[in-house]
Amino acid sequence: MAYFDAASGVPLHPVARQALLAALDEGWADPARLHKEGRRARLLLDAARETTAEAVGCRPDEVTFTPSGTLAVHSGIAGALAGRRRTGRHLIVSAVEHSSVLHSAEAHEADGGTVTRVPVDRGGLVAAASYEAALREDTALACLQSANHEVGTEQPVAGVAEVCRAAGVPLLVDAAQSLGWGPVEGDWSLLTASAHKWGGPPGVGLLVVRKGVRFAPRKPVDERESGRAAGFENIPAIVAAAAALRAVRAEAAAEAVRLRELTERIRARVPRLVPDVEVVGDPVRRLPGIVTFSCLYVDGEALLHELDREGFSVSSGSSCTSSTLTPSHVLKAMGVLSSGNVRVSLPPGTPEEDVERFLEALPGAVARVREKLGAPAGEPAPVREDALVVDALGKRCPIPVIELAKVFKDVPVGGTVRVLADDEAARLDIPAWCEMRGQEYVGEEPADGGSAHVVRRLS
Amino acid sequence: MAYFDAASGVPLHPVARQALLAALDEGWADPARLHKEGRRARLLLDAARETTAEAVGCRPDEVTFTPSGTLAVHSGIAGALAGRRRTGRHLIVSAVEHSSVLHSAEAHEADGGTVTRVPVDRGGLVAAASYEAALREDTALACLQSANHEVGTEQPVAGVAEVCRAAGVPLLVDAAQSLGWGPVEGDWSLLTASAHKWGGPPGVGLLVVRKGVRFAPRKPVDERESGRAAGFENIPAIVAAAAALRAVRAEAAAEAVRLRELTERIRARVPRLVPDVEVVGDPVRRLPGIVTFSCLYVDGEALLHELDREGFSVSSGSSCTSSTLTPSHVLKAMGVLSSGNVRVSLPPGTPEEDVERFLEALPGAVARVREKLGAPAGEPAPVREDALVVDALGKRCPIPVIELAKVFKDVPVGGTVRVLADDEAARLDIPAWCEMRGQEYVGEEPADGGSAHVVRRLS
Repeated sequence: MAYFDAASGVPLHPVARQALLAALDEGWADPARLHKEGRRARLLLDAARETTAEAVGCRPDEVTFTPSGTLAVHSGIAGALAGRRRTGRHLIVSAVEHSSVLHSAEAHEADGGTVTRVPVDRGGLVAAASYEAALREDTALACLQSANHEVGTEQPVAGVAEVCRAAGVPLLVDAAQSLGWGPVEGDWSLLTASAHKWGGPPGVGLLVVRKGVRFAPRKPVDERESGRAAGFENIPAIVAAAAALRAVRAEAAAEAVRLRELTERIRARVPRLVPDVEVVGDPVRRLPGIVTFSCLYVDGEALLHELDREGFSVSSGSSCTSSTLTPSHVLKAMGVLSSGNVRVSLPPGTPEEDVERFLEALPGAVARVREKLGAPAGEPAPVREDALVVDALGKRCPIPVIELAKVFKDVPVGGTVRVLADDEAARLDIPAWCEMRGQEYVGEEPADGGSAHVVRRLS
Repeated sequence: MAYFDAASGVPLHPVARQALLAALDEGWADPARLHKEGRRARLLLDAARETTAEAVGCRPDEVTFTPSGTLAVHSGIAGALAGRRRTGRHLIVSAVEHSSVLHSAEAHEADGGTVTRVPVDRGGLVAAASYEAALREDTALACLQSANHEVGTEQPVAGVAEVCRAAGVPLLVDAAQSLGWGPVEGDWSLLTASAHKWGGPPGVGLLVVRKGVRFAPRKPVDERESGRAAGFENIPAIVAAAAALRAVRAEAAAEAVRLRELTERIRARVPRLVPDVEVVGDPVRRLPGIVTFSCLYVDGEALLHELDREGFSVSSGSSCTSSTLTPSHVLKAMGVLSSGNVRVSLPPGTPEEDVERFLEALPGAVARVREKLGAPAGEPAPVREDALVVDALGKRCPIPVIELAKVFKDVPVGGTVRVLADDEAARLDIPAWCEMRGQEYVGEEPADGGSAHVVRRLS
């Protein structure tokens, strides 16, 4: 088996495992207690905080350990918004943030706040100028990921921090995907991360609040973690998380070069090995280990199962919403094909042979899924009477786009075809198909029981 | 060293340690993922949920794993209140709940809700009739601990659940201190607990919401744990927690008998070994392993350090507020002496010899603290000119009560003495001293820079 889903989580780093076992013996007691066991636990907690602060590039008293990266984001956004409530209730996020950030934004809206979602380009990249344009008198907080979790695109955090700083607005950076690779550059105000992404155990998130940043933790709180994260500290896991961070950082520079070469290989070869594939995400500004591509005429879940049977564990579509099967909000915001989406995220240490085996197995896996779905092959499909209207109502993507492709050769150049569909993903996939094929997407019209997507043949 | 602070937390049970190590290998991946590693993690999570449900006595789909007992309480109270918001915003808690419950109640009040705090008797016990009397048309939720964390008193949960059920009000039971000993009886609606209290690892809390109970989780949430606990599940710790619960339950009946005998020994012998001691908590309805007593003329923190030097780890005063040094809200609600408070909570497996050694060491430790503080000894103190006014302004308890005792023999029977004090604990300790000594506490009057506590000599 080859596990290629590091962006979801990686196994415990061997160094972290050792640290965890030691800390289970030494650090199980309540660090708020005055007895020997309590003092010993507190020492371990203090040491882990120092190690972590050094890796982040901040002061130890700016570090709060939370029970997960998600809770770090939820608490960080809520606390920063509440701390600047007098300034206003406007929040800026990018359209491609992790769901935990977007959920916080939705909760803020439900509570009467306003939210601006900054768009991204086709590579998933935000522009500092877009953040600058979104800043208002009443902006309380801006949020930006250091790198995208689905496509690996690295965001211009330092530039965005600069425009925020100039406007006196704090910037919260979700560094979940990048902190293992290095500290986040720029003059950010808050930072969040998650230990199980860098080889630490689950159960540890990180919330860093720079001195001087106004912060009012959401109630109820207690006296733990300076009143910023309620509940008994998970010291063994925190100790292991800090040890893992130090260990992966020591290996990061060399491993980044190696993984970048492997993902570059996938980026370059997949489009040559598999017909009708779009590699997505910024080709240059990207994390070392992530590469994402979408395959036309393919159902993402079916492809994932096919690859799983072949011994490859990858992720498809949107992380954290894989169970809901809605198209990924990230791919949607980028305006790229969402069908047959595969995210390959290589854990540190991935052997080159595993990547080569993957490249060997992928074309067959995609072909089998396409065959099952009846996607267009080399042979022309028979001419049909109703060729100019494709009725894909009640059919889930990628069926509508497959049906479109089947009839398209029968459309005269300059003529149009109407695809009737009620699956929301058709809104993404039909325009994306047009872009890939150099055809014109005329637009969407209401139709009985769904929408009609009109496509004009240009060549 | 003898660790007698099990009510704060206990080391990982050996069975839990084994389960944790196995689950770190098998259960590190994201259970929301469809690949092999994800499915394996999900299977472990499902099995742990079933084991836990069996131990609680509920359905697996009623169990939510949270990152701590505190967060289970915070989420449980917030969700139950929000779920019944249409009924009203009145919350009932007992005066001796864990701080996590009281913090939730304070947050609810700050948000415009109303709270009734049900008093307890001198043993720390609530009466079902008091809950019945507190119930109102607009009561959304009642909360009651299964047993008190500071004095071990077991509450009449089944009776309180009955009066709540009759009024159509859900009862949330904080079972943190008792779940390892057995399921909570009665027809409760919600239940919370914390794994590190029963030998599981830190990082796992339990929130049980019975089917049919209206519950609206506080936003933001995600798709984890049925939308009731956001963030990546800590599966290795959850697996270990479930294994520990099963293991301690198997040993619970026999161990309860043994520990109850040991704590009974402490209850009976401490007052004979140490002068001026009050053993607090219900003598009959109590947890097997907890015994709490307060020593007149003693500073709790000094006694704790003295015992620590002798090799005994105990807790003093209020748990979870030990760092703030305010008098325990539990002892305050019970109206008992708070000075020199010691909670002995024996972990399962505590050897009898450790308890005997403790009983040998205690009298000397108390005597040394009293000596340092200049507490009254056998020798009469010299008569002083200002005998009838004791100026203890600016002095922290137990100094005010020690000064009172020093002059008291000079007060004629029927006469009064005024103790000037500004330490809040004097409000508890001077009346408690009067009760222990059979003297009359006349009352408190405002005085320059503090209060005057007036005491009349009756004998």
